[in-house]
Amino acid sequence: MADVAAKERKILIAVDESEESIYALSWCIENILTGNSNDTLILLYSVPPRAVYSTLDGSGYLFSSDILATMERYSSGVAQCVMEKAKRACEALNGVKVETIVEHGDARDVICQAAEKLHVDMLVMGSHGYGVIKRAFLGSVSNHCAQNVKCPVLIVKKPKTDGRSK
Amino acid sequence: MADVAAKERKILIAVDESEESIYALSWCIENILTGNSNDTLILLYSVPPRAVYSTLDGSGYLFSSDILATMERYSSGVAQCVMEKAKRACEALNGVKVETIVEHGDARDVICQAAEKLHVDMLVMGSHGYGVIKRAFLGSVSNHCAQNVKCPVLIVKKPKTDGRSK
Repeated sequence: MADVAAKERKILIAVDESEESIYALSWCIENILTGNSNDTLILLYSVPPRAVYSTLDGSGYLFSSDILATMERYSSGVAQCVMEKAKRACEALNGVKVETIVEHGDARDVICQAAEKLHVDMLVMGSHGYGVIKRAFLGSVSNHCAQNVKCPVLIVKKPKTDGRSK
Repeated sequence: MADVAAKERKILIAVDESEESIYALSWCIENILTGNSNDTLILLYSVPPRAVYSTLDGSGYLFSSDILATMERYSSGVAQCVMEKAKRACEALNGVKVETIVEHGDARDVICQAAEKLHVDMLVMGSHGYGVIKRAFLGSVSNHCAQNVKCPVLIVKKPKTDGRSK
């Protein structure tokens, strides 16, 4: 039984524009997906909701509609760019089906809801590169998802480049 | 490249006497290890340190040396029992090398130190079954390790038996 790689797994990978995210995807491709062509890989990108921009100034009037439209276009551009990069990373996978989803909303909610809704077998996330202060305000996305998602969660950290091979 | 399952992975699995732990091991065997016979699976069991018993009464005098010796024997018995159960679960794996390690100490420290020292490619843990109150005092072992271990960490939760198939 154990030497037959016939199990079909549905794996959700949360991707964003960070280096940690693309590292997590590459690690998953090399370590989890090799040798199994029955998997479905779902790349999920969450676009921050407009509310995040509006609350930046507190008044809600700082940004004109033009600027907001520009930001929306920028977000879509980033989403497209991230997805293309992620799909290129998946090209080496033989037989694995790759699907992409772009959702608007807070990353934590988007990821938890998608994992639930799509009945995935595993969620893979990079451990993002927020600094200490930013993390204190935003909370850790990977931490939140690890605690709230019901399926197994794989958190991949990008090793610090300290000259060691591992 | 992607269809050759030749990569040798060293996977550390933290096991204990909980149902969540044996579920995590079984899930890992079925979903991560199938089809790859080049892996080394390291089963790690951490025996709580004697200090945990001594602090139960606060005075340190409640337990006689006889009782402490009995507790030590009980701990060893549990460790042996868990390891045997875990090894039986691994019997279906063709070619995968299975190693066992029993260490004394706080599970959080033991797991983090072992992952670091053994240079493992991935740490797998069950999400334990502590209740809300116990977790508040003890902290979540899986949470702690996910934040402190440098390698990728896979946290497997045992699904609640609510009649659903997934």
